[in-house]
Amino acid sequence: MKLDKSMKILIVGLGLMGGSYAAALTREGYCVSAVSDDRDSVEYALKKGIIKNGAWTVDEKIVSEADVVIFALYPHTFIEWVREHGNLIKTGAVVTDVTGVKCGIVDRIQELLKPGAEFIAAHPMAGREVCGVRNSDPDIFKGANYIIVPTGKNTPGAIELCRNLGEILGFERITELSPKKHDEMVAFVSQLTHCIAVSLMCACDDPELVRYTGDSFRDLTRIANINDVMWSELFLTNRVSLLEEMDRYRSSFDKLYGYIKTGDREGIREMMRISSARRKNFDIKG
Amino acid sequence: MKLDKSMKILIVGLGLMGGSYAAALTREGYCVSAVSDDRDSVEYALKKGIIKNGAWTVDEKIVSEADVVIFALYPHTFIEWVREHGNLIKTGAVVTDVTGVKCGIVDRIQELLKPGAEFIAAHPMAGREVCGVRNSDPDIFKGANYIIVPTGKNTPGAIELCRNLGEILGFERITELSPKKHDEMVAFVSQLTHCIAVSLMCACDDPELVRYTGDSFRDLTRIANINDVMWSELFLTNRVSLLEEMDRYRSSFDKLYGYIKTGDREGIREMMRISSARRKNFDIKG
Repeated sequence: MKLDKSMKILIVGLGLMGGSYAAALTREGYCVSAVSDDRDSVEYALKKGIIKNGAWTVDEKIVSEADVVIFALYPHTFIEWVREHGNLIKTGAVVTDVTGVKCGIVDRIQELLKPGAEFIAAHPMAGREVCGVRNSDPDIFKGANYIIVPTGKNTPGAIELCRNLGEILGFERITELSPKKHDEMVAFVSQLTHCIAVSLMCACDDPELVRYTGDSFRDLTRIANINDVMWSELFLTNRVSLLEEMDRYRSSFDKLYGYIKTGDREGIREMMRISSARRKNFDIKG
Repeated sequence: MKLDKSMKILIVGLGLMGGSYAAALTREGYCVSAVSDDRDSVEYALKKGIIKNGAWTVDEKIVSEADVVIFALYPHTFIEWVREHGNLIKTGAVVTDVTGVKCGIVDRIQELLKPGAEFIAAHPMAGREVCGVRNSDPDIFKGANYIIVPTGKNTPGAIELCRNLGEILGFERITELSPKKHDEMVAFVSQLTHCIAVSLMCACDDPELVRYTGDSFRDLTRIANINDVMWSELFLTNRVSLLEEMDRYRSSFDKLYGYIKTGDREGIREMMRISSARRKNFDIKG
Protein backbone atom coordinates (compact mmCIF):
# COMPACT_ATOMS: atom_id res chain seq x y z
CA MET A 1 0.00 0.00 0.00
CA LYS A 2 1.42 3.38 -1.01
CA LEU A 3 0.33 6.90 -0.23
CA ASP A 4 -1.59 8.27 -3.20
CA LYS A 5 -2.63 11.79 -3.95
CA SER A 6 -6.35 11.08 -3.78
CA MET A 7 -5.97 10.16 -0.11
CA LYS A 8 -6.95 12.65 2.56
CA ILE A 9 -4.18 13.08 5.15
CA LEU A 10 -5.00 14.50 8.57
CA ILE A 11 -2.41 15.80 11.00
CA VAL A 12 -3.42 16.08 14.66
CA GLY A 13 -1.29 18.66 16.44
CA LEU A 14 0.46 21.56 14.74
CA GLY A 15 3.74 22.05 16.56
CA LEU A 16 7.19 21.90 14.97
CA MET A 17 6.80 18.27 13.88
CA GLY A 18 3.14 18.39 12.81
CA GLY A 19 3.83 21.61 10.91
CA SER A 20 6.93 20.17 9.22
CA TYR A 21 5.03 17.00 8.17
CA ALA A 22 2.25 19.19 6.77
CA ALA A 23 4.64 21.47 4.91
CA ALA A 24 6.58 18.56 3.38
CA LEU A 25 3.47 16.61 2.30
CA THR A 26 1.74 19.69 0.87
CA ARG A 27 4.87 20.56 -1.08
CA GLU A 28 4.84 17.04 -2.57
CA GLY A 29 1.25 17.57 -3.74
CA TYR A 30 -0.71 15.68 -1.09
CA CYS A 31 -4.03 16.84 0.36
CA VAL A 32 -3.35 17.74 4.00
CA SER A 33 -5.74 18.84 6.75
CA ALA A 34 -5.01 19.52 10.39
CA VAL A 35 -6.76 19.81 13.72
CA SER A 36 -5.15 21.42 16.74
CA ASP A 37 -6.48 23.05 19.88
CA ASP A 38 -4.34 26.10 19.13
CA ARG A 39 -6.31 28.46 16.89
CA ASP A 40 -3.33 30.64 16.08
CA SER A 41 -1.32 27.67 14.75
CA VAL A 42 -4.19 26.52 12.53
CA GLU A 43 -4.77 30.02 11.15
CA TYR A 44 -1.05 30.43 10.50
CA ALA A 45 -0.86 27.08 8.66
CA LEU A 46 -3.91 27.93 6.54
CA LYS A 47 -2.53 31.37 5.71
CA LYS A 48 0.85 29.94 4.70
CA GLY A 49 -0.78 27.22 2.60
CA ILE A 50 0.84 24.46 4.65
CA ILE A 51 -2.58 22.82 5.04
CA LYS A 52 -5.70 22.85 2.89
CA ASN A 53 -8.29 22.55 5.66
CA GLY A 54 -8.01 23.05 9.38
CA ALA A 55 -9.96 23.37 12.59
CA TRP A 56 -9.16 24.32 16.19
CA THR A 57 -11.86 22.03 17.48
CA VAL A 58 -12.14 18.29 16.79
CA ASP A 59 -14.04 18.76 13.53
CA GLU A 60 -16.06 15.56 12.91
CA LYS A 61 -16.11 15.97 9.15
CA ILE A 62 -12.36 16.54 8.77
CA VAL A 63 -11.49 13.65 11.10
CA SER A 64 -13.96 11.12 9.65
CA GLU A 65 -12.93 11.79 6.05
CA ALA A 66 -9.22 11.11 6.63
CA ASP A 67 -7.60 8.06 5.04
CA VAL A 68 -4.31 8.59 6.89
CA VAL A 69 -4.08 10.20 10.34
CA ILE A 70 -0.73 11.36 11.72
CA PHE A 71 -0.54 12.22 15.43
CA ALA A 72 2.03 14.84 16.39
CA LEU A 73 1.13 15.29 20.07
CA TYR A 74 2.89 14.72 23.40
CA PRO A 75 2.45 11.11 24.64
CA HIS A 76 -0.27 11.66 27.26
CA THR A 77 -2.24 14.05 25.00
CA PHE A 78 -2.06 11.50 22.19
CA ILE A 79 -3.62 8.80 24.38
CA GLU A 80 -6.30 11.17 25.70
CA TRP A 81 -7.20 12.34 22.20
CA VAL A 82 -7.64 8.78 20.90
CA ARG A 83 -9.63 7.77 23.99
CA GLU A 84 -12.05 10.69 23.52
CA HIS A 85 -12.26 11.05 19.74
CA GLY A 86 -10.76 7.87 18.25
CA ASN A 87 -14.21 6.57 17.32
CA LEU A 88 -14.43 9.34 14.69
CA ILE A 89 -11.59 7.79 12.67
CA LYS A 90 -13.05 5.77 9.84
CA THR A 91 -12.77 2.04 9.23
CA GLY A 92 -9.85 1.34 6.92
CA ALA A 93 -7.85 4.40 7.96
CA VAL A 94 -4.15 4.02 8.70
CA VAL A 95 -3.00 5.90 11.81
CA THR A 96 0.63 6.77 12.60
CA ASP A 97 2.53 9.11 14.93
CA VAL A 98 5.80 10.87 15.73
CA THR A 99 6.08 9.99 19.43
CA GLY A 100 9.62 9.61 20.77
CA VAL A 101 8.77 6.77 23.19
CA LYS A 102 6.88 3.62 22.21
CA CYS A 103 6.39 1.16 25.13
CA GLY A 104 3.13 1.88 26.93
CA ILE A 105 1.96 3.99 23.99
CA VAL A 106 1.74 1.67 20.96
CA ASP A 107 -0.21 -1.08 22.72
CA ARG A 108 -2.65 1.34 24.29
CA ILE A 109 -3.37 3.16 21.04
CA GLN A 110 -3.90 -0.16 19.25
CA GLU A 111 -6.36 -1.18 22.00
CA LEU A 112 -8.21 2.15 22.01
CA LEU A 113 -8.78 2.39 18.24
CA LYS A 114 -11.89 0.68 16.95
CA PRO A 115 -11.33 -2.47 14.85
CA GLY A 116 -10.68 -1.61 11.24
CA ALA A 117 -8.48 1.42 11.87
CA GLU A 118 -4.82 0.35 12.10
CA PHE A 119 -2.15 2.10 14.15
CA ILE A 120 1.41 1.72 12.91
CA ALA A 121 3.93 3.60 15.09
CA ALA A 122 6.85 5.60 13.73
CA HIS A 123 9.57 7.84 15.13
CA PRO A 124 11.09 10.53 12.93
CA MET A 125 14.50 11.18 14.55
CA ALA A 126 14.64 14.82 13.60
CA GLY A 127 14.20 17.98 15.60
CA ARG A 128 15.23 21.53 16.29
CA GLU A 129 15.93 23.57 19.40
CA VAL A 130 12.79 25.61 18.61
CA CYS A 131 9.06 24.88 18.87
CA GLY A 132 5.82 25.59 17.07
CA VAL A 133 4.40 25.65 13.57
CA ARG A 134 6.07 28.99 12.86
CA ASN A 135 9.44 27.18 12.94
CA SER A 136 8.25 24.29 10.80
CA ASP A 137 10.48 23.34 7.90
CA PRO A 138 9.80 20.73 5.21
CA ASP A 139 13.54 20.05 4.91
CA ILE A 140 14.00 19.06 8.57
CA PHE A 141 13.96 15.33 7.69
CA LYS A 142 16.76 15.32 5.13
CA GLY A 143 19.65 13.07 6.18
CA ALA A 144 17.73 11.89 9.27
CA ASN A 145 16.64 8.46 10.53
CA TYR A 146 13.03 7.26 10.46
CA ILE A 147 12.14 4.27 12.60
CA ILE A 148 9.01 2.21 12.01
CA VAL A 149 7.88 0.40 15.18
CA PRO A 150 5.48 -2.41 14.25
CA THR A 151 3.81 -4.91 16.60
CA GLY A 152 2.34 -8.35 15.89
CA LYS A 153 -0.97 -6.63 15.18
CA ASN A 154 0.29 -4.71 12.15
CA THR A 155 -0.35 -5.72 8.54
CA PRO A 156 2.29 -5.63 5.79
CA GLY A 157 0.15 -3.06 3.94
CA ALA A 158 0.18 -0.53 6.79
CA ILE A 159 3.92 -1.03 7.37
CA GLU A 160 4.51 -0.39 3.66
CA LEU A 161 2.39 2.76 3.75
CA CYS A 162 4.32 4.02 6.78
CA ARG A 163 7.63 3.35 5.00
CA ASN A 164 6.37 5.17 1.93
CA LEU A 165 5.45 8.16 4.13
CA GLY A 166 9.04 8.23 5.44
CA GLU A 167 10.38 8.15 1.87
CA ILE A 168 8.13 11.00 0.75
CA LEU A 169 9.20 13.10 3.75
CA GLY A 170 12.82 12.69 2.61
CA PHE A 171 14.38 10.60 5.42
CA GLU A 172 17.78 9.15 4.59
CA ARG A 173 17.52 5.84 6.44
CA ILE A 174 14.33 3.94 7.24
CA THR A 175 14.52 1.00 9.63
CA GLU A 176 12.23 -1.14 11.79
CA LEU A 177 12.55 -1.85 15.51
CA SER A 178 10.32 -3.44 18.15
CA PRO A 179 8.88 -1.03 20.76
CA LYS A 180 11.28 -2.37 23.41
CA LYS A 181 14.39 -2.13 21.21
CA HIS A 182 13.31 1.31 20.05
CA ASP A 183 13.00 2.63 23.59
CA GLU A 184 16.37 1.20 24.65
CA MET A 185 18.05 2.75 21.62
CA VAL A 186 16.39 6.13 22.14
CA ALA A 187 17.34 6.09 25.83
CA PHE A 188 21.01 5.81 24.87
CA VAL A 189 21.45 7.89 21.72
CA SER A 190 18.94 10.64 22.42
CA GLN A 191 17.66 10.90 25.99
CA LEU A 192 21.00 10.21 27.69
CA THR A 193 22.76 12.82 25.53
CA HIS A 194 20.14 15.39 26.56
CA CYS A 195 20.63 14.41 30.25
CA ILE A 196 24.37 14.94 29.87
CA ALA A 197 24.03 18.35 28.23
CA VAL A 198 21.49 19.56 30.82
CA SER A 199 23.63 18.29 33.73
CA LEU A 200 26.73 19.99 32.33
CA MET A 201 24.99 23.35 31.93
CA CYS A 202 23.59 23.06 35.48
CA ALA A 203 27.03 22.24 36.92
CA CYS A 204 28.47 25.73 36.54
CA ASP A 205 26.88 29.13 36.82
CA ASP A 206 29.85 31.27 35.85
CA PRO A 207 28.60 33.53 33.02
CA GLU A 208 32.21 34.44 32.19
CA LEU A 209 32.74 30.95 30.79
CA VAL A 210 31.23 31.90 27.48
CA ARG A 211 34.35 33.95 26.85
CA TYR A 212 36.52 30.86 26.89
CA THR A 213 34.50 28.11 25.33
CA GLY A 214 35.65 26.37 22.20
CA ASP A 215 33.68 24.40 19.64
CA SER A 216 33.78 21.26 21.76
CA PHE A 217 31.78 22.81 24.59
CA ARG A 218 29.41 24.56 22.22
CA ASP A 219 28.70 21.37 20.23
CA LEU A 220 28.28 19.25 23.34
CA THR A 221 25.75 21.62 24.92
CA ARG A 222 23.76 22.62 21.84
CA ILE A 223 20.89 20.37 23.00
CA ALA A 224 20.98 21.87 26.51
CA ASN A 225 18.45 24.40 25.24
CA ILE A 226 15.50 22.05 25.60
CA ASN A 227 11.68 22.00 25.63
CA ASP A 228 11.16 21.11 29.30
CA VAL A 229 7.48 20.12 28.99
CA MET A 230 8.07 17.62 26.19
CA TRP A 231 11.38 16.18 27.33
CA SER A 232 10.39 15.71 30.99
CA GLU A 233 7.42 13.70 29.74
CA LEU A 234 9.61 11.62 27.38
CA PHE A 235 12.15 10.95 30.17
CA LEU A 236 9.47 9.81 32.61
CA THR A 237 7.60 7.72 30.03
CA ASN A 238 10.85 5.87 29.27
CA ARG A 239 12.15 5.94 32.82
CA VAL A 240 13.29 2.32 33.17
CA SER A 241 15.41 2.23 30.01
CA LEU A 242 16.76 5.73 30.61
CA LEU A 243 17.90 4.96 34.17
CA GLU A 244 19.66 1.83 32.90
CA GLU A 245 21.56 3.82 30.28
CA MET A 246 22.38 6.55 32.82
CA ASP A 247 23.82 3.85 35.12
CA ARG A 248 25.88 2.38 32.31
CA TYR A 249 27.27 5.79 31.34
CA ARG A 250 28.02 6.71 34.95
CA SER A 251 30.01 3.51 35.46
CA SER A 252 32.11 4.42 32.45
CA PHE A 253 32.59 8.01 33.70
CA ASP A 254 33.51 6.71 37.18
CA LYS A 255 36.07 4.35 35.66
CA LEU A 256 37.78 7.25 33.90
CA TYR A 257 37.55 9.32 37.11
CA GLY A 258 39.31 6.50 39.00
CA TYR A 259 42.13 6.30 36.45
CA ILE A 260 42.70 10.06 36.65
CA LYS A 261 42.61 10.03 40.47
CA THR A 262 45.16 7.21 40.78
CA GLY A 263 47.29 8.54 37.92
CA ASP A 264 46.76 5.41 35.80
CA ARG A 265 47.92 6.80 32.47
CA GLU A 266 47.58 3.48 30.66
CA GLY A 267 43.96 3.09 31.84
CA ILE A 268 43.09 6.56 30.56
CA ARG A 269 44.82 5.92 27.23
CA GLU A 270 43.04 2.59 26.77
CA MET A 271 39.62 4.25 27.22
CA MET A 272 40.63 6.98 24.77
CA ARG A 273 41.74 4.41 22.20
CA ILE A 274 38.43 2.51 22.49
CA SER A 275 36.51 5.77 22.27
CA SER A 276 38.45 6.96 19.20
CA ALA A 277 38.04 3.65 17.36
CA ARG A 278 34.27 3.58 17.99
CA ARG A 279 33.77 7.22 17.14
CA LYS A 280 35.47 6.81 13.77
CA ASN A 281 32.68 4.44 12.72
CA PHE A 282 30.19 7.26 13.15
CA ASP A 283 31.87 9.33 10.48
CA ILE A 284 31.22 6.64 7.90
CA LYS A 285 27.64 6.96 6.74
CA GLY A 286 26.24 3.45 7.09
CA MET B 1 56.56 45.64 21.71
CA LYS B 2 55.11 44.30 18.48
CA LEU B 3 56.17 41.48 16.22
CA ASP B 4 58.05 42.94 13.29
CA LYS B 5 59.09 41.31 10.06
CA SER B 6 62.82 41.62 10.68
CA MET B 7 62.44 39.33 13.73
CA LYS B 8 63.40 35.70 13.45
CA ILE B 9 60.65 33.42 14.75
CA LEU B 10 61.49 29.86 15.80
CA ILE B 11 58.90 27.16 16.31
CA VAL B 12 59.91 24.14 18.39
CA GLY B 13 57.76 21.13 17.53
CA LEU B 14 56.00 20.65 14.19
CA GLY B 15 52.72 18.93 14.99
CA LEU B 16 49.27 20.26 14.14
CA MET B 17 49.70 23.40 16.26
CA GLY B 18 53.33 24.15 15.47
CA GLY B 19 52.63 23.61 11.79
CA SER B 20 49.54 25.83 11.86
CA TYR B 21 51.45 28.63 13.66
CA ALA B 22 54.21 28.33 11.06
CA ALA B 23 51.80 28.36 8.13
CA ALA B 24 49.86 31.37 9.44
CA LEU B 25 52.98 33.43 10.27
CA THR B 26 54.70 32.61 6.96
CA ARG B 27 51.54 33.59 5.08
CA GLU B 28 51.60 36.96 6.87
CA GLY B 29 55.18 37.53 5.69
CA TYR B 30 57.16 36.65 8.85
CA CYS B 31 60.47 34.79 8.83
CA VAL B 32 59.80 31.39 10.41
CA SER B 33 62.20 28.55 11.27
CA ALA B 34 61.47 25.30 13.03
CA VAL B 35 63.23 22.53 14.89
CA SER B 36 61.61 19.18 15.53
CA ASP B 37 62.95 15.71 16.23
CA ASP B 38 60.78 14.38 13.40
CA ARG B 39 62.73 14.64 10.16
CA ASP B 40 59.73 13.90 7.96
CA SER B 41 57.76 16.80 9.45
CA VAL B 42 60.62 19.25 8.92
CA GLU B 43 61.17 18.11 5.34
CA TYR B 44 57.44 18.37 4.62
CA ALA B 45 57.26 21.91 6.09
CA LEU B 46 60.30 23.01 4.07
CA LYS B 47 58.90 21.50 0.88
CA LYS B 48 55.52 23.19 1.39
CA GLY B 49 57.18 26.53 2.17
CA ILE B 50 55.57 26.68 5.62
CA ILE B 51 59.01 27.40 7.11
CA LYS B 52 62.13 29.06 5.72
CA ASN B 53 64.71 27.06 7.68
CA GLY B 54 64.43 23.88 9.65
CA ALA B 55 66.40 21.16 11.38
CA TRP B 56 65.60 17.76 12.91
CA THR B 57 68.32 18.20 15.50
CA VAL B 58 68.62 21.08 17.96
CA ASP B 59 70.52 23.31 15.53
CA GLU B 60 72.54 25.80 17.62
CA LYS B 61 72.57 28.48 14.95
CA ILE B 62 68.82 28.42 14.30
CA VAL B 63 67.99 28.43 18.01
CA SER B 64 70.44 31.13 19.06
CA GLU B 65 69.39 33.51 16.28
CA ALA B 66 65.68 33.48 17.20
CA ASP B 67 64.09 36.65 18.58
CA VAL B 68 60.83 34.88 19.34
CA VAL B 69 60.61 31.18 20.27
CA ILE B 70 57.25 29.38 20.25
CA PHE B 71 57.07 25.97 21.92
CA ALA B 72 54.49 23.57 20.50
CA LEU B 73 55.40 20.43 22.45
CA TYR B 74 53.65 18.22 24.99
CA PRO B 75 54.12 19.51 28.58
CA HIS B 76 56.86 17.12 29.77
CA THR B 77 58.79 17.36 26.49
CA PHE B 78 58.61 21.15 26.69
CA ILE B 79 60.20 21.16 30.18
CA GLU B 80 62.86 18.63 29.14
CA TRP B 81 63.76 20.63 26.03
CA VAL B 82 64.20 23.86 27.98
CA ARG B 83 66.22 22.09 30.68
CA GLU B 84 68.61 20.62 28.12
CA HIS B 85 68.83 23.33 25.46
CA GLY B 86 67.30 26.48 27.00
CA ASN B 87 70.78 28.01 27.39
CA LEU B 88 70.96 28.32 23.59
CA ILE B 89 68.12 30.87 23.56
CA LYS B 90 69.58 34.34 23.32
CA THR B 91 69.32 37.15 25.85
CA GLY B 92 66.39 39.40 24.99
CA ALA B 93 64.40 36.67 23.26
CA VAL B 94 60.69 36.32 24.04
CA VAL B 95 59.54 32.73 24.55
CA THR B 96 55.93 31.59 24.40
CA ASP B 97 54.01 28.31 24.04
CA VAL B 98 50.73 26.59 23.19
CA THR B 99 50.48 24.26 26.20
CA GLY B 100 46.94 23.47 27.36
CA VAL B 101 47.81 23.36 31.10
CA LYS B 102 49.73 26.09 32.91
CA CYS B 103 50.24 25.37 36.65
CA GLY B 104 53.50 23.52 37.21
CA ILE B 105 54.65 24.49 33.71
CA VAL B 106 54.87 28.29 33.61
CA ASP B 107 56.84 28.66 36.86
CA ARG B 108 59.27 25.89 35.93
CA ILE B 109 59.99 27.29 32.49
CA GLN B 110 60.52 30.76 33.93
CA GLU B 111 63.00 29.25 36.43
CA LEU B 112 64.82 27.16 33.83
CA LEU B 113 65.40 29.93 31.28
CA LYS B 114 68.49 32.02 31.76
CA PRO B 115 67.96 35.62 32.93
CA GLY B 116 67.27 37.89 30.00
CA ALA B 117 65.06 35.50 28.05
CA GLU B 118 61.42 36.01 29.03
CA PHE B 119 58.75 33.30 28.97
CA ILE B 120 55.17 34.50 28.52
CA ALA B 121 52.65 31.65 28.44
CA ALA B 122 49.71 31.46 26.05
CA HIS B 123 46.99 28.96 25.20
CA PRO B 124 45.45 29.01 21.73
CA MET B 125 42.03 27.35 22.26
CA ALA B 126 41.86 25.80 18.83
CA GLY B 127 42.30 22.26 17.61
CA ARG B 128 41.25 19.51 15.30
CA GLU B 129 40.57 15.79 15.66
CA VAL B 130 43.67 15.12 13.57
CA CYS B 131 47.40 15.37 14.26
CA GLY B 132 50.63 16.32 12.56
CA VAL B 133 52.05 18.99 10.32
CA ARG B 134 50.33 17.45 7.28
CA ASN B 135 46.99 18.53 8.76
CA SER B 136 48.18 22.01 9.67
CA ASP B 137 45.95 24.87 8.60
CA PRO B 138 46.65 28.61 8.94
CA ASP B 139 42.88 29.26 9.31
CA ILE B 140 42.45 27.04 12.38
CA PHE B 141 42.52 30.08 14.71
CA LYS B 142 39.71 32.07 13.14
CA GLY B 143 36.86 32.68 15.57
CA ALA B 144 38.77 31.00 18.41
CA ASN B 145 39.91 32.16 21.87
CA TYR B 146 43.51 32.99 22.73
CA ILE B 147 44.43 33.18 26.39
CA ILE B 148 47.57 34.93 27.63
CA VAL B 149 48.72 33.60 31.00
CA PRO B 150 51.13 36.08 32.60
CA THR B 151 52.80 35.81 36.00
CA GLY B 152 54.30 38.53 38.23
CA LYS B 153 57.60 37.99 36.43
CA ASN B 154 56.34 39.13 33.03
CA THR B 155 56.98 42.57 31.55
CA PRO B 156 54.33 44.67 29.76
CA GLY B 157 56.43 44.49 26.59
CA ALA B 158 56.40 40.69 26.41
CA ILE B 159 52.66 40.56 27.18
CA GLU B 160 52.06 43.04 24.37
CA LEU B 161 54.16 40.99 21.95
CA CYS B 162 52.23 37.85 22.89
CA ARG B 163 48.91 39.66 22.32
CA ASN B 164 50.15 40.90 18.97
CA LEU B 165 51.06 37.32 18.01
CA GLY B 166 47.47 36.26 18.80
CA GLU B 167 46.13 39.10 16.63
CA ILE B 168 48.37 38.16 13.71
CA LEU B 169 47.29 34.54 13.94
CA GLY B 170 43.67 35.66 13.58
CA PHE B 171 42.14 34.81 16.98
CA GLU B 172 38.74 36.35 17.61
CA ARG B 173 39.04 37.00 21.33
CA ILE B 174 42.23 37.57 23.30
CA THR B 175 42.05 37.55 27.10
CA GLU B 176 44.36 37.20 30.11
CA LEU B 177 44.05 34.75 33.00
CA SER B 178 46.31 33.70 35.87
CA PRO B 179 47.73 30.15 35.63
CA LYS B 180 45.34 28.93 38.35
CA LYS B 181 42.22 30.50 36.78
CA HIS B 182 43.29 29.24 33.37
CA ASP B 183 43.61 25.67 34.57
CA GLU B 184 40.24 25.74 36.36
CA MET B 185 38.54 27.11 33.26
CA VAL B 186 40.20 24.60 30.95
CA ALA B 187 39.25 21.75 33.31
CA PHE B 188 35.58 22.68 32.92
CA VAL B 189 35.13 23.82 29.34
CA SER B 190 37.64 21.56 27.62
CA GLN B 191 38.92 18.62 29.66
CA LEU B 192 35.58 17.73 31.27
CA THR B 193 33.82 17.76 27.89
CA HIS B 194 36.44 15.35 26.54
CA CYS B 195 35.96 13.10 29.61
CA ILE B 196 32.21 13.06 28.96
CA ALA B 197 32.55 12.19 25.28
CA VAL B 198 35.08 9.43 25.95
CA SER B 199 32.95 7.95 28.77
CA LEU B 200 29.85 7.97 26.59
CA MET B 201 31.59 6.18 23.72
CA CYS B 202 32.99 3.60 26.15
CA ALA B 203 29.54 2.99 27.70
CA CYS B 204 28.11 1.11 24.75
CA ASP B 205 29.71 -1.25 22.27
CA ASP B 206 26.72 -1.84 19.99
CA PRO B 207 27.98 -1.04 16.46
CA GLU B 208 24.38 -0.97 15.23
CA LEU B 209 23.86 2.30 17.06
CA VAL B 210 25.34 4.31 14.23
CA ARG B 211 22.21 3.49 12.26
CA TYR B 212 20.04 5.39 14.71
CA THR B 213 22.08 8.34 15.87
CA GLY B 214 20.90 11.85 15.26
CA ASP B 215 22.87 15.09 15.18
CA SER B 216 22.78 15.41 18.96
CA PHE B 217 24.78 12.22 19.52
CA ARG B 218 27.14 12.98 16.67
CA ASP B 219 27.86 16.53 17.92
CA LEU B 220 28.29 15.43 21.51
CA THR B 221 30.81 12.71 20.66
CA ARG B 222 32.81 14.50 17.93
CA ILE B 223 35.67 15.00 20.40
CA ALA B 224 35.58 11.31 21.45
CA ASN B 225 38.11 10.73 18.67
CA ILE B 226 41.06 11.93 20.73
CA ASN B 227 44.87 11.92 20.78
CA ASP B 228 45.40 9.61 23.77
CA VAL B 229 49.08 10.49 24.33
CA MET B 230 48.49 14.23 24.51
CA TRP B 231 45.19 14.26 26.38
CA SER B 232 46.19 11.69 29.03
CA GLU B 233 49.16 13.94 29.80
CA LEU B 234 46.97 17.07 29.94
CA PHE B 235 44.45 15.33 32.22
CA LEU B 236 47.14 14.14 34.63
CA THR B 237 49.01 17.45 34.63
CA ASN B 238 45.76 19.22 35.62
CA ARG B 239 44.46 16.39 37.79
CA VAL B 240 43.34 18.41 40.84
CA SER B 241 41.20 20.91 38.92
CA LEU B 242 39.84 18.26 36.57
CA LEU B 243 38.71 15.97 39.42
CA GLU B 244 36.96 18.94 41.05
CA GLU B 245 35.05 19.71 37.86
CA MET B 246 34.23 16.03 37.33
CA ASP B 247 32.81 15.94 40.88
CA ARG B 248 30.73 19.04 40.26
CA TYR B 249 29.32 17.67 37.01
CA ARG B 250 28.61 14.27 38.54
CA SER B 251 26.61 15.88 41.37
CA SER B 252 24.50 17.65 38.79
CA PHE B 253 24.02 14.43 36.78
CA ASP B 254 23.10 12.53 39.96
CA LYS B 255 20.53 15.18 40.86
CA LEU B 256 18.82 14.73 37.50
CA TYR B 257 19.05 10.94 37.90
CA GLY B 258 17.31 11.23 41.28
CA TYR B 259 14.48 13.34 39.84
CA ILE B 260 13.91 10.82 37.05
CA LYS B 261 14.02 7.88 39.47
CA THR B 262 11.47 9.39 41.86
CA GLY B 263 9.32 10.77 39.04
CA ASP B 264 9.85 14.39 40.14
CA ARG B 265 8.67 16.10 36.96
CA GLU B 266 9.01 19.60 38.42
CA GLY B 267 12.62 18.94 39.47
CA ILE B 268 13.49 17.76 35.95
CA ARG B 269 11.75 20.75 34.36
CA GLU B 270 13.53 23.20 36.66
CA MET B 271 16.95 21.81 35.66
CA MET B 272 15.94 22.00 31.99
CA ARG B 273 14.83 25.62 32.38
CA ILE B 274 18.14 26.59 34.04
CA SER B 275 20.05 24.72 31.35
CA SER B 276 18.11 26.36 28.50
CA ALA B 277 18.52 29.87 29.91
CA ARG B 278 22.28 29.42 30.39
CA ARG B 279 22.79 27.80 27.00
CA LYS B 280 21.09 30.67 25.20
CA ASN B 281 23.88 32.98 26.39
CA PHE B 282 26.37 30.88 24.46
CA ASP B 283 24.67 31.64 21.17
CA ILE B 284 25.34 35.35 21.64
CA LYS B 285 28.91 36.04 20.62
CA GLY B 286 30.34 37.99 23.56
